Amino acid sequence: MTDIKTTLSDVVGAEHLLTGDAIGEDYAHDEALSREPVKPAYVARPENAEQVALLLKAAAEQGIPVTARGSGSGLSGASAPRENGLLISFERMNAILEIDTENHVAVVQPGVTLQELDDKLAEAGLVYPVYPGELSASIGGNVGTNAGGMRAIKYGVTRHNVLGLEAALPTGEVIRTGGKFVKASTGYDLTQLIIGSEGTLALVTEAVLKVQPRLQHQGTVLAPFVDLDEVARAVPKVVGSGLGPLILEYIDGLTMGAITYSAQLQLGIPDEVRETSQAYLVVMLENRSADRLDEDIEELGELLSGLGAKDVYVLPGPSARKLIDAREKAFFTAKAAGADDIIDTVIPRAALPQFMARVREIAQENNTFVIGCGHAGDGNVHLAVLQKDAEVRERVLRGLFEAGIDLGGAISGEHGIGQKHVKSFLALTDPAKVDLMRRIKVAFDPAGVLNPGVLFD
Amino acid sequence: MTDIKTTLSDVVGAEHLLTGDAIGEDYAHDEALSREPVKPAYVARPENAEQVALLLKAAAEQGIPVTARGSGSGLSGASAPRENGLLISFERMNAILEIDTENHVAVVQPGVTLQELDDKLAEAGLVYPVYPGELSASIGGNVGTNAGGMRAIKYGVTRHNVLGLEAALPTGEVIRTGGKFVKASTGYDLTQLIIGSEGTLALVTEAVLKVQPRLQHQGTVLAPFVDLDEVARAVPKVVGSGLGPLILEYIDGLTMGAITYSAQLQLGIPDEVRETSQAYLVVMLENRSADRLDEDIEELGELLSGLGAKDVYVLPGPSARKLIDAREKAFFTAKAAGADDIIDTVIPRAALPQFMARVREIAQENNTFVIGCGHAGDGNVHLAVLQKDAEVRERVLRGLFEAGIDLGGAISGEHGIGQKHVKSFLALTDPAKVDLMRRIKVAFDPAGVLNPGVLFD
Ligand SMILES: Cc1cc2nc3c(=O)[nH]c(=O)nc-3n(C[C@H](O)[C@H](O)[C@H](O)COP(=O)(O)OP(=O)(O)OC[C@H]3O[C@@H](n4cnc5c(N)ncnc54)[C@H](O)[C@@H]3O)c2cc1C
Ligand SMILES: Cc1cc2nc3c(=O)[nH]c(=O)nc-3n(C[C@H](O)[C@H](O)[C@H](O)COP(=O)(O)OP(=O)(O)OC[C@H]3O[C@@H](n4cnc5c(N)ncnc54)[C@H](O)[C@@H]3O)c2cc1C
Repeated sequence: MTDIKTTLSDVVGAEHLLTGDAIGEDYAHDEALSREPVKPAYVARPENAEQVALLLKAAAEQGIPVTARGSGSGLSGASAPRENGLLISFERMNAILEIDTENHVAVVQPGVTLQELDDKLAEAGLVYPVYPGELSASIGGNVGTNAGGMRAIKYGVTRHNVLGLEAALPTGEVIRTGGKFVKASTGYDLTQLIIGSEGTLALVTEAVLKVQPRLQHQGTVLAPFVDLDEVARAVPKVVGSGLGPLILEYIDGLTMGAITYSAQLQLGIPDEVRETSQAYLVVMLENRSADRLDEDIEELGELLSGLGAKDVYVLPGPSARKLIDAREKAFFTAKAAGADDIIDTVIPRAALPQFMARVREIAQENNTFVIGCGHAGDGNVHLAVLQKDAEVRERVLRGLFEAGIDLGGAISGEHGIGQKHVKSFLALTDPAKVDLMRRIKVAFDPAGVLNPGVLFD
Repeated sequence: MTDIKTTLSDVVGAEHLLTGDAIGEDYAHDEALSREPVKPAYVARPENAEQVALLLKAAAEQGIPVTARGSGSGLSGASAPRENGLLISFERMNAILEIDTENHVAVVQPGVTLQELDDKLAEAGLVYPVYPGELSASIGGNVGTNAGGMRAIKYGVTRHNVLGLEAALPTGEVIRTGGKFVKASTGYDLTQLIIGSEGTLALVTEAVLKVQPRLQHQGTVLAPFVDLDEVARAVPKVVGSGLGPLILEYIDGLTMGAITYSAQLQLGIPDEVRETSQAYLVVMLENRSADRLDEDIEELGELLSGLGAKDVYVLPGPSARKLIDAREKAFFTAKAAGADDIIDTVIPRAALPQFMARVREIAQENNTFVIGCGHAGDGNVHLAVLQKDAEVRERVLRGLFEAGIDLGGAISGEHGIGQKHVKSFLALTDPAKVDLMRRIKVAFDPAGVLNPGVLFD
């Protein structure tokens, strides 16, 4: 038997198999907080599906753990490698293969970043509407985590916008699922099963994405409320209005302070409003027509005033962009402020007040500082947890997850379980479901080499 | 060991276990054409999830095939029972459990029909936007086939509108998947895997459905074109316009003749237009505002004229409803006209002209009459095949499926594989994929009792 290094290097070429010191620090982690970096034994940079399949086959034969890596911007340690493992980096598979304006799809390799895709689609007057906060993220990573972001309230998440995949299986086969169509009833939906599986079932080598006409007019409204309960009460009304918001975010007072401060953003909110507002709602609308947008913004303003907003600010374009940008970077602001963890529990959106009440209790009981913002329309709450003591922090996280699940929610809305939350996931999920998922995992990956330690222990 | 009849009857009560002559003819088939009815050995009518689980457990222990039945309106023989089998009819599990206006979801039992749900939601100003042509269909059946229908172009299909399930597994466990939220990244998406699995993986005992504000204003435009190629060329432009059509259907000349004739519908299209129009496009728009709707209809009319429509008829409400209704009943019209089979191949929508060219060739080569209509926006072509000779018919169907797959499509867009198209499915699908699906099937159903003969042989 040839040694594994030679085998891998034969597949991708010596130049694209890195070992030892040639492996840069960046490959040793994703963006998950409070985790030690771990360098893998090998980094391979394949250039096509066949190479990916051959790498997987070799790894399966030799029982070597394999982790897929897109841009490494994940927040749950799902693309962080194993010490004795192989990291497959998709950086070279980064071509936009086709923008098909007749079928309204884009066909891309997994290493394409959201920014690259967006730039290209903008030229064609199209948009891929999944905008998680980090545009350096790759499509492969988005598929891995079922990435969401602010526009999910209107367009859904990755799952709703990926129509088909090409994927390499740990058995060494390459399959194609779905296609340039929005629906099929022809066997099990493998596309959907692979989406959100965090690189534990199959590795994506190509994706067919649904794209939309890019609407030209956008308007943003910022509304301060007394507290989060009021915001939570307003959200279903905005959803029910038929205005079809593109973005519907809440930001708590502290987070608003932090992100506007760090972005040097002046929103012109008078002191007396600011001082008595513990929560903000940010609503963005879009339209094909400028006139209709203006009417809608007006209607939205009246609606929000009627729902208790202390004022309604229609933000000028540049401020709106800056605010959204600052909100997207809230993670980095929290990190800079010393956050030790970030979670993104999802709950039924109407349960937001109850959930936040539990969050406050848990924080207090554990002497921990918890602040946040979130995709209010989706009930997806992003909380930064500041607690240095790892044991206490684990207890706090577990408590927050439990609270979310008790209210009918789930541990993560879009960041995933990764390596970080495996214990909580296994402890808090119905064992019948976990067993079923394990059997599905075996159906794809009998040798158990794909991202061991992610989802399952 | 107690005999199976006693076991089953102990679970649901003697009154709800039917055998022999007590089993009505209706249970012996679904709406699939050219199939002999088959009465099952047992029909059980459970009233809750626990009973369903116990039935499954008993059947698995004794190796008895189990078929789930909603309303039996399926078109692929997927709810048609096995002679020695148990049919589980969900007719008694037909409660609408909750209309939650804060989270915009409805929670229903699987036996609820679309019509019942629609009536109830209308009262609350809400809509569950999945409208397959047959409103007597049940939610459980919709989940089974991943039902689509005309509004998929705007709202997606069942898959995009079911947020969570309760389901009984053949191992006798009851699990809950998803919930009152639009997204999660917390393990494999079992909801999506069960949707479209045609009762072969798990039986749905409850569903959480995403509902939408019910927009009050709708307008319908009918545009005759010289031929289907012209229609196909117009479709991407309508999609790309941003007008966001609710319905985007094509109807070929013969089908239009048949359905308007059988519905006694006068559309007032002058003879000279009718005689030179081989294909029609039907576009419905909806809006919250009557004024905006009028503007959009106007814009749509101009767009269609520019794209070669021979005329553009804005249909008055009652005619529009009748036409849509007649289109929905096209299946029954075709059946009455002697159609021997109906298929619903899905292709990338821009491939419609190539596909239809192949359809014409195959029809001619085999001396077979093929007419149709379809969800043009989705590339989902419904074809009625008139050919009495079963062998020739099989050849025609196989040819049509192959043609669709060659163009990047799939055998069925929304009707499913069922028992009818298993051979074609297995012959035309990548064996690596079929094997993977079989392994997934085993992960759910180790005893192989759920709907054997559907999807797999
Ligand atoms: C500032 C900031 C803001 C963020 N905001 C959001 C947000 O709003 N919404 C949101 O959802 N996320 C957000 N994220 C998280 C992150 O951007 C997403 O999880 C994104 O999907 C990760 O993409 P990536 O390419 O960096 O993936 P990676 O971190 O490289 O990988 C993520 C997962 O995908 C798997 N994977 C990667 N490539 C493949 C492939 N080709 N085939 C199969 N599996 C693969 C990996 O194994 C891993 O399990 C944010 C992150 C940051 C840093
Ligand atoms: C006139 C007409 C028009 C139609 N138009 C359309 C259309 O436009 N779009 C479309 O998609 N379909 C259409 N159909 C097909 C049919 O209505 C759909 O397939 C529908 O989803 C079937 O629902 P049902 O309750 O009748 O299911 P059934 O026929 O009873 O069952 C369908 C499948 O679901 C499974 N099933 C049923 N209940 C459950 C459960 N509780 N758990 C798990 N599996 C279950 C069955 O085992 C079977 O595999 C049409 C049919 C007719 C007769």
